Amino acid sequence: MKTYLDCIPCFFKQALDAARIAGASQRTQKRILSELAKALTKFSLNSSPPEMGRVIYGLVRKITKENDPYKKIKDKSNRFALGLYDKLKKKVSTAGDSFLMALELAIAGNIIDYGVKNSLNVDKELKRILNEEDKTIRKEKKTNFLYFEFKRSLKNARTILYLADNAGETVFDRILLQEIKRHYNNKRIFYAVKEKPIINDALAKDAYICGIDKEAEIISSGLDAPGTILSLCSREFLKIYNSVDMVISKGQGNFEALSKAKRPIFFLFMAKCPVVAKDVGCNMGDIILFHNTKKRHKSKKGR
Amino acid sequence: MKTYLDCIPCFFKQALDAARIAGASQRTQKRILSELAKALTKFSLNSSPPEMGRVIYGLVRKITKENDPYKKIKDKSNRFALGLYDKLKKKVSTAGDSFLMALELAIAGNIIDYGVKNSLNVDKELKRILNEEDKTIRKEKKTNFLYFEFKRSLKNARTILYLADNAGETVFDRILLQEIKRHYNNKRIFYAVKEKPIINDALAKDAYICGIDKEAEIISSGLDAPGTILSLCSREFLKIYNSVDMVISKGQGNFEALSKAKRPIFFLFMAKCPVVAKDVGCNMGDIILFHNTKKRHKSKKGR
Repeated sequence: MKTYLDCIPCFFKQALDAARIAGASQRTQKRILSELAKALTKFSLNSSPPEMGRVIYGLVRKITKENDPYKKIKDKSNRFALGLYDKLKKKVSTAGDSFLMALELAIAGNIIDYGVKNSLNVDKELKRILNEEDKTIRKEKKTNFLYFEFKRSLKNARTILYLADNAGETVFDRILLQEIKRHYNNKRIFYAVKEKPIINDALAKDAYICGIDKEAEIISSGLDAPGTILSLCSREFLKIYNSVDMVISKGQGNFEALSKAKRPIFFLFMAKCPVVAKDVGCNMGDIILFHNTKKRHKSKKGR
Repeated sequence: MKTYLDCIPCFFKQALDAARIAGASQRTQKRILSELAKALTKFSLNSSPPEMGRVIYGLVRKITKENDPYKKIKDKSNRFALGLYDKLKKKVSTAGDSFLMALELAIAGNIIDYGVKNSLNVDKELKRILNEEDKTIRKEKKTNFLYFEFKRSLKNARTILYLADNAGETVFDRILLQEIKRHYNNKRIFYAVKEKPIINDALAKDAYICGIDKEAEIISSGLDAPGTILSLCSREFLKIYNSVDMVISKGQGNFEALSKAKRPIFFLFMAKCPVVAKDVGCNMGDIILFHNTKKRHKSKKGR
């Protein structure tokens, strides 16, 4: 996805939030915004938003000298999500369609506000996110929730690359990986995390803490960007990316970076901002299970 | 009010909105944002937000060569508000406290979305804004709604300066001016509008169209900023500003520009953004009738 002009105010907001999380003084916050303003004048709108994200968080890291400002938030998210594990497993095992439930939980895991919720109101939160009443409708809604295509692709794939998004969310991913393995035998699954700290994106240690290693091979994309920008990925990662039968991309950042990719990818995310929703052609808050070839076919737009 | 760092993302959003209203191409929109980014690096946070507002809309005017991009919006707002005149008058005349009703309507006039509403749902809109159930509570709530102080000041003042805000809203101001004159005799009232087009702020012609000249002397502040920045006002305006017994300042922009002014001012506005709400110490959406000396007394902050 290209960067829209509407992303620009949001870049400043993100920079400010990140600067504050990194504990920057008022003066340093202002400096970060000024540096971002300078970087912006050189930034091409043909780049995807995660490319600017990389610049923003790079600036915050460099200026505040905080290498991993979101560490505490990530640790808290991991702990919190691990505490939900049994409850989530039960939710899946008792669901009418356990695979669909695991799939939707994997998206819900992306947007739970780990910072302010406690386990007592997670049920309510999950219910709200998943909007359970509409599940049947969503299952039927072919355009933006390609459930049957996704299952067909899983059935045929021998090798799968799963692109992780945030820490904490990894627990929800683990449950989906378990369901994939339970329903479809003999898969080799790679779970790709970021190489260096970037916002609250999962690193290898987050994946290990959440038990992903029991379900998949944890690999690094080589990245320090909040989305899988192929031109910046490691050679090892690209080899896997190009050779696997199926790619499952989690989260909005990976969608933004990969929506115009040449290889087929399933995108699994919730449209969290109006710009992405408009780009996808959905409503904000919609749960999306999307395939890039479908989009290209629909919009006749180039790769 | 000083400029907070949280205002910066909003500046970019405002610039983008204004550029689009001025009919700028994608490329011109980008140029405006880039110029704003440059201006930002030189901007002091000790300036008030309307000072940056002046820069932003000046850039849009200069780059798009549209001298008054909001003209159509202002004309529509005037027409729409004039169409409400009889209904509003009836609302005031049948109210238990007609003066309070006129006062609250004058604030409501600031935030009606003239663009999307039609006269049929204005009643609902006004009800929502004024939250009529809470009126008695608001009347009692001394901190941010100094109703009795306001009336006392009106009683004692012989000369009043009323600082206008937006086009359309001027109709609501007119009704308040009528109530002021009905309840308090022998006042000389000046109604100050902006000199040059700035966003949807009322100009002299908007005031005349809405009939303000029947209630007050229309004067210009000499400004092209979305708030009364004293250092940029005309000498004639400042003479009146400094000599009148009472100043009534309408809208958030005038509050932002004048909250630290040395002379006593009554501010009449709704807190429309979280930054202003935080600065005032109220909730977003609160109807404020505030006096700057009260604030200084409370917060012990300098002028």
